Amino acid sequence: MTNPHLDIDETLAAQRAQRIRGALLRPASIALVGASDDPGKTSGRPLPYLRRAGYTGRIYPVNPRNATVMGERAWPSLASLPEVPEHAFILTTTQAACDAVAECAALGVQAATVLAAGFAETGDAGRARQAQLAEVAREAGLLLLGPSSLGIIHADAHLVLTANAAFAEPELPRGATFVASHSGSMLGALVSRGKARGIGFAGMVSVGNEADLSVGEICLATVDDPAIDSYLLFLETVRHGDWLMRFARAAARAGKPVVVYKLGRSEAGAELAQSHTGAMAGEDAVADAFLRDCGFARVETFEAVFETPALLRQLARGARPRHVPRVGVVTTTGGGAAMVVDQLGVRGIDVVPATEATHARLVAAGVDVHPGRILDLTLAGTRYEVMRATLQTMLEAPEFDAVIAVAGSSARFQPDRAVRPVIDAERDNRALGKPVIAFLAPEAPEALVHLATAGVPCFRTPEACADAIAAAFGRRDFRDAPRLPVIATHRRMLDELQAYETIARLGIRHAPAVAVALPGGGDTGAVERAGVNTSANSGASSASGTGPTAAGTAPSGVAYPVAVKVLSAAIAHKSDVGGVVLGVSGAEALALALAGIARAVRTQVPDVPVERALVQTMVAGVGEVLIGYRIDPEVGPLVMLAAGGVLAEVYRDRSLRLAPVDLAGARAMIGEVRAMAALRGFRGRPAGDLDALAEAIVRLSGIAQRPELGVVEAEINPLIVHRAGEGVTAVDAVVWIADDERGDV
Amino acid sequence: MTNPHLDIDETLAAQRAQRIRGALLRPASIALVGASDDPGKTSGRPLPYLRRAGYTGRIYPVNPRNATVMGERAWPSLASLPEVPEHAFILTTTQAACDAVAECAALGVQAATVLAAGFAETGDAGRARQAQLAEVAREAGLLLLGPSSLGIIHADAHLVLTANAAFAEPELPRGATFVASHSGSMLGALVSRGKARGIGFAGMVSVGNEADLSVGEICLATVDDPAIDSYLLFLETVRHGDWLMRFARAAARAGKPVVVYKLGRSEAGAELAQSHTGAMAGEDAVADAFLRDCGFARVETFEAVFETPALLRQLARGARPRHVPRVGVVTTTGGGAAMVVDQLGVRGIDVVPATEATHARLVAAGVDVHPGRILDLTLAGTRYEVMRATLQTMLEAPEFDAVIAVAGSSARFQPDRAVRPVIDAERDNRALGKPVIAFLAPEAPEALVHLATAGVPCFRTPEACADAIAAAFGRRDFRDAPRLPVIATHRRMLDELQAYETIARLGIRHAPAVAVALPGGGDTGAVERAGVNTSANSGASSASGTGPTAAGTAPSGVAYPVAVKVLSAAIAHKSDVGGVVLGVSGAEALALALAGIARAVRTQVPDVPVERALVQTMVAGVGEVLIGYRIDPEVGPLVMLAAGGVLAEVYRDRSLRLAPVDLAGARAMIGEVRAMAALRGFRGRPAGDLDALAEAIVRLSGIAQRPELGVVEAEINPLIVHRAGEGVTAVDAVVWIADDERGDV
Repeated sequence: MTNPHLDIDETLAAQRAQRIRGALLRPASIALVGASDDPGKTSGRPLPYLRRAGYTGRIYPVNPRNATVMGERAWPSLASLPEVPEHAFILTTTQAACDAVAECAALGVQAATVLAAGFAETGDAGRARQAQLAEVAREAGLLLLGPSSLGIIHADAHLVLTANAAFAEPELPRGATFVASHSGSMLGALVSRGKARGIGFAGMVSVGNEADLSVGEICLATVDDPAIDSYLLFLETVRHGDWLMRFARAAARAGKPVVVYKLGRSEAGAELAQSHTGAMAGEDAVADAFLRDCGFARVETFEAVFETPALLRQLARGARPRHVPRVGVVTTTGGGAAMVVDQLGVRGIDVVPATEATHARLVAAGVDVHPGRILDLTLAGTRYEVMRATLQTMLEAPEFDAVIAVAGSSARFQPDRAVRPVIDAERDNRALGKPVIAFLAPEAPEALVHLATAGVPCFRTPEACADAIAAAFGRRDFRDAPRLPVIATHRRMLDELQAYETIARLGIRHAPAVAVALPGGGDTGAVERAGVNTSANSGASSASGTGPTAAGTAPSGVAYPVAVKVLSAAIAHKSDVGGVVLGVSGAEALALALAGIARAVRTQVPDVPVERALVQTMVAGVGEVLIGYRIDPEVGPLVMLAAGGVLAEVYRDRSLRLAPVDLAGARAMIGEVRAMAALRGFRGRPAGDLDALAEAIVRLSGIAQRPELGVVEAEINPLIVHRAGEGVTAVDAVVWIADDERGDV
Repeated sequence: MTNPHLDIDETLAAQRAQRIRGALLRPASIALVGASDDPGKTSGRPLPYLRRAGYTGRIYPVNPRNATVMGERAWPSLASLPEVPEHAFILTTTQAACDAVAECAALGVQAATVLAAGFAETGDAGRARQAQLAEVAREAGLLLLGPSSLGIIHADAHLVLTANAAFAEPELPRGATFVASHSGSMLGALVSRGKARGIGFAGMVSVGNEADLSVGEICLATVDDPAIDSYLLFLETVRHGDWLMRFARAAARAGKPVVVYKLGRSEAGAELAQSHTGAMAGEDAVADAFLRDCGFARVETFEAVFETPALLRQLARGARPRHVPRVGVVTTTGGGAAMVVDQLGVRGIDVVPATEATHARLVAAGVDVHPGRILDLTLAGTRYEVMRATLQTMLEAPEFDAVIAVAGSSARFQPDRAVRPVIDAERDNRALGKPVIAFLAPEAPEALVHLATAGVPCFRTPEACADAIAAAFGRRDFRDAPRLPVIATHRRMLDELQAYETIARLGIRHAPAVAVALPGGGDTGAVERAGVNTSANSGASSASGTGPTAAGTAPSGVAYPVAVKVLSAAIAHKSDVGGVVLGVSGAEALALALAGIARAVRTQVPDVPVERALVQTMVAGVGEVLIGYRIDPEVGPLVMLAAGGVLAEVYRDRSLRLAPVDLAGARAMIGEVRAMAALRGFRGRPAGDLDALAEAIVRLSGIAQRPELGVVEAEINPLIVHRAGEGVTAVDAVVWIADDERGDV
């Protein structure tokens, strides 16, 4: 677990960054520990790969049983080398690798990459082994990559320091995207698939288990490298969120876009909702919120990873694009174009027709085309002048934020001629910052290479095309909000009255509520009013502390009908123990409810002393939502909005963001929860006060900047949303605070 | 619009099928009307394509301006030919094409294919032109393909009768899948992409606008062709549902699987719910219900179309597979396998680990692998014996319904060696009917060709792999339910009391309800009871017609609290005109409610005579649903289940099937509506009577077999679902009946 405080020692961080750029990525000397003489073995690969790549540093094969390895002199041990190597690539099995790392540490090696598996992924013993490995490295100031790392490729340094068989490939193209991957074997898939479409990489690193060096720290150290203009992260999870966030900040400043493909979509599906904030949002949802707040573009389809960097490069040239672009499509193949239109539509992106003015300009430019959602040029579109003029007119038309050219058979048979107008249109209009994108309906590998080489994002599946467009345009800006969350080893729950006091300090209104004694308990007859509500939200529904609004014998401050709830910091789920009665409409019913609750709770949880109940005015609105705050161990404070009620849980309909959020962020969250449509005047229903809801989200998320509150988790469920202009009201709340002295509850 | 009665003349159908197999797909002679001498023109393509394909029939280029076309003798007109050609491919522009079809009809040509566009897709004039064209053909008994058809390819007959440039391609592989497509240009994409992975087709037809010949009729005529073992349909919409259904029946009998890729997913998203059954289910949802009830496997990703036929062939060898398979994964590349696992998980399909017994057998077979969700053999898996033994053990293990081998770099560098164990395992275990599937992580085109040629479904994207598996296993059996729906030109709505009588005849219980006079109208004081409820569902809640169950002055037959609703066959949306008061608890309140409704309705819809209201016992349950029946003009009777309430509308959460359904079908529908989870005892809530709900769906769907009811549309919204064992109760119903004499309402 990483401390989301980001309290990284800056001096140490700077030293490590220097070593990453040096010993890790551009080492002057390398020891290959356990290098094999057998080219069929994994450990036999790095030496020939390095030689073939033209690596100019010194290479020292280390092998206690062979005097030579593949015709080169080998040394029996690290200690026997003529110099302390800057980088050791340790190719031995688990235990021997641990020993080698210890030796590296003792000798003063600067960076060690560990190939062996058998660490944290294998259970408790492996976790202990990994922690020990990391500790040895940390004490010595040794940078450790892995364990389970397949190595590093750095084109600029002619460094192909890897045991991945994919790098047996000759003539790999070079590119400007740097890749960091949890999976080492996926580097091979990226390299071969990239090559087939003319796409290469500036560098690649397989980070393995990230026992020491992480995706974020390595990428951060490279962010000023002029040979790198973008990043591609292949992630299995989010680890070391602090370093990722630092990298995100630096990448945003440097204007270098980051594309992410992350596994784990489906695990989220398996975890069905728990009422607590944390559990309700599955792990992938947390990671997703984090990655998007980092400003990364997360793609869903594997194919999209290859072309999304090019699309982001195009977008970076213009003003901040709209999140949901209006797309224009020109084609020579109606069916192929329709597939792209359909896939864009599935992702909520509209393909829009040309306006009449644009159509008139097309006619003036000699283009004979029927107006329609797709500009289908048919056979005429295979002529350079026609396609070029159409693209030019579309790029200049204000109704399009991006233009897609969908090519048919000509892209296969005359690849150069078919893609030329697209390439020229892209090149001549870069100042517009308006993407020109290609989708090729047939199998047309040469055309793909021509386009990719020219910097035009080009796709071979409609799904990847639509996915990349959605991810690139939908990408959010990196948001640099100060976060000072409370970090607690132990925590305790407040009772509901205390919880209301806390949310009142945040400025969120709650329903009027007073504590009364339960019969048979102590303090008979005492009435304690909820703290004066300081909400700036106070609207038509009266805050607590005012007199009863209905006749009867309701306790001072509340009005019938009331909800009666057991009041205890030891009971999280009040309904489950018979601790809640709703709709109590008079003094007699109230007495009955109190007696019933006392009896039920004392029977069901006899060990918990319960003496009081909360009597709370029932509040009605046009809808209910849940808002919550919690601190994730990897990514830090989060705020969540979910629809209320059982169906919302069934549908897992919620939005999650790093806390704090501002009003624009809160409004965007409301836009992401589908059920909120019901609060926008859906089908003639009254609209809810979504402004007040956004304000409440902002206030709850503000806990991340108010350590003095001591809050580590808070949930308001439900928060009643009244009609527009009438605010929102909390009618139940759970708050957990740090309690490191008294132990966990 | 097609008559869903399927009242096709069988003699005529048999004659046409004969001609499809003959003149359309295996013509002895072909006229190329408008054949051009310029190979760069669309109309210049068919002649050289036919010649190169080795077509052995007689070819007659028809061109009034040239004596020769591409060195061959040309004729000035159809009439001038030495024989009446069996097939005319008409390559001229719109009006000339109409003239040519008329000439074909006059001459007795058997089949004409029309390339020109400019018909129904262009508006009213085009629709009229197309109707005229179809009428000319029909009267002459001329089969018409198109208009907007790019032609026909039939490998067996060496027939490449097309203007699609993609067929300039040399050495196209042959296959056993027949393709029918609305889009002609997509045939090119299929051909070139298929060729790149060793996949060819038995035949292809571009059906264009389906003015006469349709996808269903053409495919049906070929279903006994031994050279065809499967079908691939590329659809833009569902037209001629009657023919498609006939084809589906025949394909099911012949054991020839059908794969469908259909555009239009996203249009459904755009159509937000209307309260009426039809509108709530968008058009794609109707098509989807139809295609699935046909037993077709619908894929979502374009790449999946190439390999799903092979997967269905494997499945066809075994017993009916489970709809959600348990999948085993073996790999040499963990990252690549994880992508597939993730994508399967997104589609609700679990990758399961080997059991202890299977693991023991693996060890006994000499395979050294850690137990886990994925069997990751790492480098050892590149050895033939290891991968072969692992696959054999997995195929024999009862816990796996399918096995996926995920290959890494070896598939690129040693394609033959890498895929050999997979190919052998598949070949040697066909009797098991258990699919062996490959996913290749790197770019490995040769391995793809090896696998595809051997009949192993092999994928290059994780999305297509998971999509194909979900579609192939999830495919339903063709269901041959007799359907005799009422077809009506005009229809009228029943009032609610009559609607209750109708659903009571179906055996669906409704809440007790009586009609009373509204003050100021006629029939003062009269009370009319709802018809005796014949429901077999009758459970704890009493049906109408019994005495009041609560004290008070409720009209005989109902009990307070009651709902009061204006009763009129002329008011579809009662609430919108102030015609509904709920929760009325006594005689005084009832009188007030009746007066209020009378005033409101007479003010808001003064032209509608309203004299009565329905007084109905309020009924509570554990949930509400909507069930509906309607007749789609293309696919016929449909039944729908949707969750009740506004959120269900927001989420568009519903299941749609062809009516009638049986109990198993109704239960499957319940399983498809996500909100139904809330009625299964979700989170400690009481479970609803889903057996009774299934029974009610069956009964409502039975309207499709009861023409005597005259019902053309029915909707029960809400249907209250009581606790398990307590049944379901309709508390509102709308029924429309055929009324061809009285005109449409």
